[in-house]
Amino acid sequence: MTRITLLTDFGTADGYVAAMKGVIAAIAPGAAIDDASHDIDQGDIRAGAFTLGRYWRLYPAGTVHVVVVDPGVGGDRRAIAARVDDRVFVAPDNGVLSRVFADVEPERVVALEEPAFHRTPVSATFHGRDVFAPVAAHVASGVSLHALGPPVADPIRIGLPAPSRDGRRVEGEVVHVDRFGNLITNIPGAWASDGDAVRVRDRDVVPVRRTYADVDRGGLLALVGSLGLLEVSVRDGNAAERLGVGRGAAVTVGLGDETNSAA
Amino acid sequence: MTRITLLTDFGTADGYVAAMKGVIAAIAPGAAIDDASHDIDQGDIRAGAFTLGRYWRLYPAGTVHVVVVDPGVGGDRRAIAARVDDRVFVAPDNGVLSRVFADVEPERVVALEEPAFHRTPVSATFHGRDVFAPVAAHVASGVSLHALGPPVADPIRIGLPAPSRDGRRVEGEVVHVDRFGNLITNIPGAWASDGDAVRVRDRDVVPVRRTYADVDRGGLLALVGSLGLLEVSVRDGNAAERLGVGRGAAVTVGLGDETNSAA
Amino acid sequence: MTRITLLTDFGTADGYVAAMKGVIAAIAPGAAIDDASHDIDQGDIRAGAFTLGRYWRLYPAGTVHVVVVDPGVGGDRRAIAARVDDRVFVAPDNGVLSRVFADVEPERVVALEEPAFHRTPVSATFHGRDVFAPVAAHVASGVSLHALGPPVADPIRIGLPAPSRDGRRVEGEVVHVDRFGNLITNIPGAWASDGDAVRVRDRDVVPVRRTYADVDRGGLLALVGSLGLLEVSVRDGNAAERLGVGRGAAVTVGLGDETNSAA
Repeated sequence: MTRITLLTDFGTADGYVAAMKGVIAAIAPGAAIDDASHDIDQGDIRAGAFTLGRYWRLYPAGTVHVVVVDPGVGGDRRAIAARVDDRVFVAPDNGVLSRVFADVEPERVVALEEPAFHRTPVSATFHGRDVFAPVAAHVASGVSLHALGPPVADPIRIGLPAPSRDGRRVEGEVVHVDRFGNLITNIPGAWASDGDAVRVRDRDVVPVRRTYADVDRGGLLALVGSLGLLEVSVRDGNAAERLGVGRGAAVTVGLGDETNSAA
Repeated sequence: MTRITLLTDFGTADGYVAAMKGVIAAIAPGAAIDDASHDIDQGDIRAGAFTLGRYWRLYPAGTVHVVVVDPGVGGDRRAIAARVDDRVFVAPDNGVLSRVFADVEPERVVALEEPAFHRTPVSATFHGRDVFAPVAAHVASGVSLHALGPPVADPIRIGLPAPSRDGRRVEGEVVHVDRFGNLITNIPGAWASDGDAVRVRDRDVVPVRRTYADVDRGGLLALVGSLGLLEVSVRDGNAAERLGVGRGAAVTVGLGDETNSAA
Repeated sequence: MTRITLLTDFGTADGYVAAMKGVIAAIAPGAAIDDASHDIDQGDIRAGAFTLGRYWRLYPAGTVHVVVVDPGVGGDRRAIAARVDDRVFVAPDNGVLSRVFADVEPERVVALEEPAFHRTPVSATFHGRDVFAPVAAHVASGVSLHALGPPVADPIRIGLPAPSRDGRRVEGEVVHVDRFGNLITNIPGAWASDGDAVRVRDRDVVPVRRTYADVDRGGLLALVGSLGLLEVSVRDGNAAERLGVGRGAAVTVGLGDETNSAA
């Protein structure tokens, strides 16, 4: 049974997602369809890329991942399919696959130009239904990427902020704020140690700990999260609200001896 | 594999939807269950009907569509099943199937009066679990509509506002506002042309364009949406908020030469 | 086809749920994965327990129910699997299974200590992905509870408030407020009769009726809900907002003759 996952910014109330599922079910009736999320902030390509990065490789080889965060629909942005590490991605060519491509170089990328695999006519506003869903279903049914359209040599890649390390000082930034208000940074967990001090926007100082239980309820801490990255959190609380901080905020790590009071 | 889709106004947090899925899984363990949406506004039959209209026919023949937007549960409204174009619908008889019936005249409608296909006892508040889910699962397992109850000749149909065209003037209204704030009208896209002027509530004038990319970011436009209907939108923005307009607002289309400034 | 249900407080936007699904799909590719809900209030173990109580037994024998409402992740709380009435539960040992255990005494409970069935390494923050999802998938694939770890004799049970009945007076409390603002109490429906008067916080008096249709729109009533418990509701309205009441509010039932005005 092939699995097709769906990641969109559509919400579900208007039926856009159900329309995509119906198209898939009609073409590939045996495929399992998994909702990844439909709650990406509208048009937030970076958030879509981050969320996709969290799960794509946990799915088995053969999975088809559909990603429709597509503020440029109807314009001249390309639609693409990419084969990466034996998974196939179907998405607009707007950078939403950047984290996938940063994890593993794509084996093949094609532009979705072969109308035989699209609905006819293709609307100006809803390529999720008319292009991405039918292409994904055809791929799940065995159609090869070659058939979908010509190769693309230069899919769009969004610059992902890179952390830096210079002797005693590590510099990075918040790259995602999750539902719990955790500030997920781009700093590898291995670059920080228990007892180090993390500064957020050069203002708040947070101690590095191993797990939430190492601080009291309501206490601030930095810890290595499930992506292996340094995260700033409040135990049973919301760090983004507490610190008034969002994506892009500067985060630095200093050695343990400079820790002062935090929360 | 038969597919059963679920559309409700239950949200998911309280477990009402999971209860329906459990009932289905117990009766029809091989059926695939697709969430269409559980985020219809509470008791908003028109919104449920609109959303259902977007996807029902994209699913393949044989699909069972369950719709539970049911403010009259426990009262004397009927529960029905309808066969339309080889799909089966299971829903309260409150008009939520009106758009389906407007698309294709139902082949057969029955009242769900045969208790052998319901849970026992049927609660006064949750027919989703006790009537609609088990009936859907039995239908997916091969039970015919005849067995479910007596025929219904007059299922309730909500009047759907019809657009009018009189020489140079087209009149219609907003029939749905989607998550993106797009104002979806009941005016066929074919009744408007690039360059025509659309008036919303006789106040705001919006130019007809082919696609979002034809205006600048933040610009208002009207375009033919994915249902083939005229929609008023803001590129990368929210037209409902911008214009302060909701469902039922009057929309007219005039010829291109009357376009003035808009946003 | 084995079904695995997922109940979490993760929301979907960050990809935590999709990560769990991917892990399951990789280990048990033939399993059906049902979303129960991902909208439990963050860390609200009582709400998770209540919601789980609504659906677990409606699913057929053999179902694996995964529950991740886990504010103590990374601390010293145990992770457990429990076999109850031929379903298997995989969850943190924090009381979230209390209502299941109150319904049916568990046949076997084990601590998830066998690392062969976990991802390696186990993160400090996301046991949904690293422990609960892989264990559930292995159970769905036939692994027995014995293999997962040593028996647990004393899984944590949250005290569930019990109603009392003393001659003419019944006392209970609100144990859940659902999306519609219905105040679900712990008072068995059989303890109240049509015409009795229900008092909420010794202030508002609400008449017991059979169904919503027995009062006018906007009218308050108490009725026996779909769990067989007394619920206080507003027809087509929100009782929690109307009465300014939430979980834990005292509810009493008096005999019919004391009914006064309500709303």
